Amino acid sequence: MSLTEQKTDQAIEILNELGIDLWLTYVRKTSEIHDPALYFLLEESWLTWQSAIIITKSGRKIAICGRYDVPNIELMGVYDTIIGYDESIKEDLLKILDEVKPETIAINYAEDNVAADGLTHGLWLRLTKMLDGTQYREKLISSDNLLAALRGRKVQMETDRILKAIEISERGHAHLANSVKLGMTEQDLEKILLDFAKDNNVTLSYPPLINIGAETTIGHGKGSAEIILKRGDLINIDYGVFYEGYASDIQRLHYVLKEGEESPPEIVQSAFNTVMEAISAGADKLKPGVKGWEVDIVAREVIIDAGYIEFKHALGHQIGRNVHDGGCLLGPRWEKYGQSPFKTVEEGQIFTLELHVFVENYGFCSVEEDVIVTKEGCKFLSDRQTELNLIKL
Amino acid sequence: MSLTEQKTDQAIEILNELGIDLWLTYVRKTSEIHDPALYFLLEESWLTWQSAIIITKSGRKIAICGRYDVPNIELMGVYDTIIGYDESIKEDLLKILDEVKPETIAINYAEDNVAADGLTHGLWLRLTKMLDGTQYREKLISSDNLLAALRGRKVQMETDRILKAIEISERGHAHLANSVKLGMTEQDLEKILLDFAKDNNVTLSYPPLINIGAETTIGHGKGSAEIILKRGDLINIDYGVFYEGYASDIQRLHYVLKEGEESPPEIVQSAFNTVMEAISAGADKLKPGVKGWEVDIVAREVIIDAGYIEFKHALGHQIGRNVHDGGCLLGPRWEKYGQSPFKTVEEGQIFTLELHVFVENYGFCSVEEDVIVTKEGCKFLSDRQTELNLIKL
Repeated sequence: MSLTEQKTDQAIEILNELGIDLWLTYVRKTSEIHDPALYFLLEESWLTWQSAIIITKSGRKIAICGRYDVPNIELMGVYDTIIGYDESIKEDLLKILDEVKPETIAINYAEDNVAADGLTHGLWLRLTKMLDGTQYREKLISSDNLLAALRGRKVQMETDRILKAIEISERGHAHLANSVKLGMTEQDLEKILLDFAKDNNVTLSYPPLINIGAETTIGHGKGSAEIILKRGDLINIDYGVFYEGYASDIQRLHYVLKEGEESPPEIVQSAFNTVMEAISAGADKLKPGVKGWEVDIVAREVIIDAGYIEFKHALGHQIGRNVHDGGCLLGPRWEKYGQSPFKTVEEGQIFTLELHVFVENYGFCSVEEDVIVTKEGCKFLSDRQTELNLIKL
Repeated sequence: MSLTEQKTDQAIEILNELGIDLWLTYVRKTSEIHDPALYFLLEESWLTWQSAIIITKSGRKIAICGRYDVPNIELMGVYDTIIGYDESIKEDLLKILDEVKPETIAINYAEDNVAADGLTHGLWLRLTKMLDGTQYREKLISSDNLLAALRGRKVQMETDRILKAIEISERGHAHLANSVKLGMTEQDLEKILLDFAKDNNVTLSYPPLINIGAETTIGHGKGSAEIILKRGDLINIDYGVFYEGYASDIQRLHYVLKEGEESPPEIVQSAFNTVMEAISAGADKLKPGVKGWEVDIVAREVIIDAGYIEFKHALGHQIGRNVHDGGCLLGPRWEKYGQSPFKTVEEGQIFTLELHVFVENYGFCSVEEDVIVTKEGCKFLSDRQTELNLIKL
C-alpha cells in the first residue's frame, strides 16, 4: 500500500477521532509555494491552479484541480473522485460541500505550527469569498490538531525511512571524523559532508552546520572560510539527510587533543558531562502524556543549575516528512513558540533532543539525538553519543 | 553590486513611486514554507523563527530575526539594521514601526498573484494579533503591486541570467531532436532532458513535459512509459531550466516523417501555421500600456476562427526568479485568474507566448517562446521557431 494511501486512511481515522467532518487542503501553484501537508496527499505531484484536496470522515478522498493536473492524480490511484475544471473551482467545490454537508471543515492553516500552515492569506481571502453567503463560511476551523496527529503518528514505512536517514547521517558523521586534518576550515568540513550526501545519493534535510573552536559563530550560518582547525578545538557537527523524503537531524561532538594530552581538559569534559546529563534528564521525562514544556524544563534546569548560559531554543522538535515536523514541541513557554509546548506527547512521535553550552577558549559543546516515544518512554533511534570523541592529529 | 542590493534599492524606488511607506515581509521557517519574495531580499539564506524583513520609502533596510540567523544576514552586507531576538519578535517589530511611523504598510499577501502571496494565514493571524491595539493594524495593504513591479522590471543582471537559461534550454531542445529514435517512449525522452540538465549543471524550472503522437495525455503529468515514438507522430517538448535562479520556459515541436514523405501532411502543416499566426498576433499586440487580456484575446481568436478548440490556459505568463513570476498575465478574464489579466503590460517585462491546438491522429501541436517588452513592442529572446522541425528516422 502506498504511503499516500496509508496516510490518507490514517487521516480518515483521525477525522473520526476528532469529530471533524471534512479536511480541506486548499492550494495553488504548489511549485512556487508548497503546503507541507501535500507530501502526504499527493506524493511529489504538483498542482497548478487553485486546487482542493478533500478527505471526509465518511471515508471519501476527493481532488478538484485544473484539468491539466488530472492525469497525474489519476495515476496515483488514491482518490475516488477527481474533478478537473477550466475556468473556476468555485462551482465544483460548492457541489462537493453540498454533497458531504460538513458541520466542521478543517482547513490548512495554524498559528503555531508551520508544518500545518500552508494556506496563504491571499488564498484564505479567495476561499472565504467563495463561501460567503453559504452555510460553510462559519464552519471553517484550523487543521492544526489533525495534522499534528497525522504527522506525529508514524506508520512503519515512515519510521523505517527515518531509521535509514539516521543511519546515513551517522555514517556521514563517522566519515567526517576520519577525514578531518589540522588546518582545514569550517567550509572544508562542510564540503566533506556535502560530498558524502552526493556520493550516497541523498539530499540534505538542512545545510550542515560546522562549528570549530572558540572563534566560531553560533547560528544557522554558513561555515567560515577563515576559521582553521587546530589542536585544542571542539568540533561540533550538525548533519541530517532526507531518505525517501524523511529526515534525520543529528549532532556529534569531537575534541582535538593537544600535544601530550591523552584526555580533554577538565572544563571541556565537565561541559560534555553536563550536556549528557541534560539530555538524559529530558529522555527520562519523555513519556506519553506529559506536556512538551515539562520535558524541556528538566533539561534546561540541568544546564542552568550547572552555571551555564541557557540555550535559546527548544530542547526538541519532531522530525518526519519535514525536519521541523510541527505539533507538540519540547520547548519553553516563550511567545515565539505559541501553543506548541503546551501540547501533549504521544506514543509513536519522533523527537530530537538537542542542547548546547559554550566552553570558553574551546568552543561550542552540543550533541543532538533522535528518539521515539514508546509506551514505556523514550527510546534512542540514533546510536547515542555518550563519550566525547577524541581525535589525535 | 549584488543582485539583492540592486533589487532592494529598486524596491525603495517603487515604494516612492507607489507612495507606500514601508514594505514588510513577515515569514518563519522558510526552509518549510518559502515566500517567493525572499529570493530578492535574502538570496539563498533561510530564516528559522518568525522574522520581519523591512524596506522603507526613506531608504532603510532592516531585518528582525532569531538570534541564530543574524550571522547569515550580516554576511550579506545589505541591511543597515539587523536585530536578533530570543523569545518574541513583537517588541522589536513594534519599536521599528514606532521609529518609521508608516502610514501604509505593504505586506506579503495577494489574492491573485501567487508570487506575491507568501504570508501564510496562520502568520497573518499572529501578525494582526501583535498589531491589535496599535495604530498599525489598519495600515496593512497587500504588497501585490509593489512585487508585480519589482519582479516585472528586470535589472540587467536578471535579463542576462534569463538569456543564459534560454540558451541552455535551446541547446537541450536541439540535443533532444538529435537523439530521438523510433521506439523510444515519452519517459525515454524525459530522461534525455534530465541528463542534459545534469550534464550542464543546471536545475529544471519545471519537470519537462513530453507529448508524443495522438495517444498522449495532455497535462502537467509525467511522460508515459507505454507511448512509443513512431513515424507520423508530432513530438512536443516543454523544457525550461534555472540559470543562477532565473527561469526559461520553452516549447519546441517536431514531426517524424512517414516513409516516403518529404513534408508533413496538410492537416499538420496547417495546424502549425495557425499556432504561428496566433503567436504572431499576440506578439504584435504586446506593447507597454495594453492590458494582459487584450494580448491573450487576439491570439485566442486566431485559434477559434480557424475552427480549433480553444486552449484552456493563458497565452503568456511572466518569467523571472520564478517560472510563474506573477503580476500582469496575458490571460483570459476567467475567475481563476482574478485581477491578473487586467493589469497593464510594462516595458522590461519578460513573458512566455504559448498555445496549442490538437491534430487528430498526429498529436499535440504547441510552441512556446520567451519575449521581452520593449518601448517599441515585443522582442523575441528565444530563437523563434518558425518552421515545423522535420525529423527523418
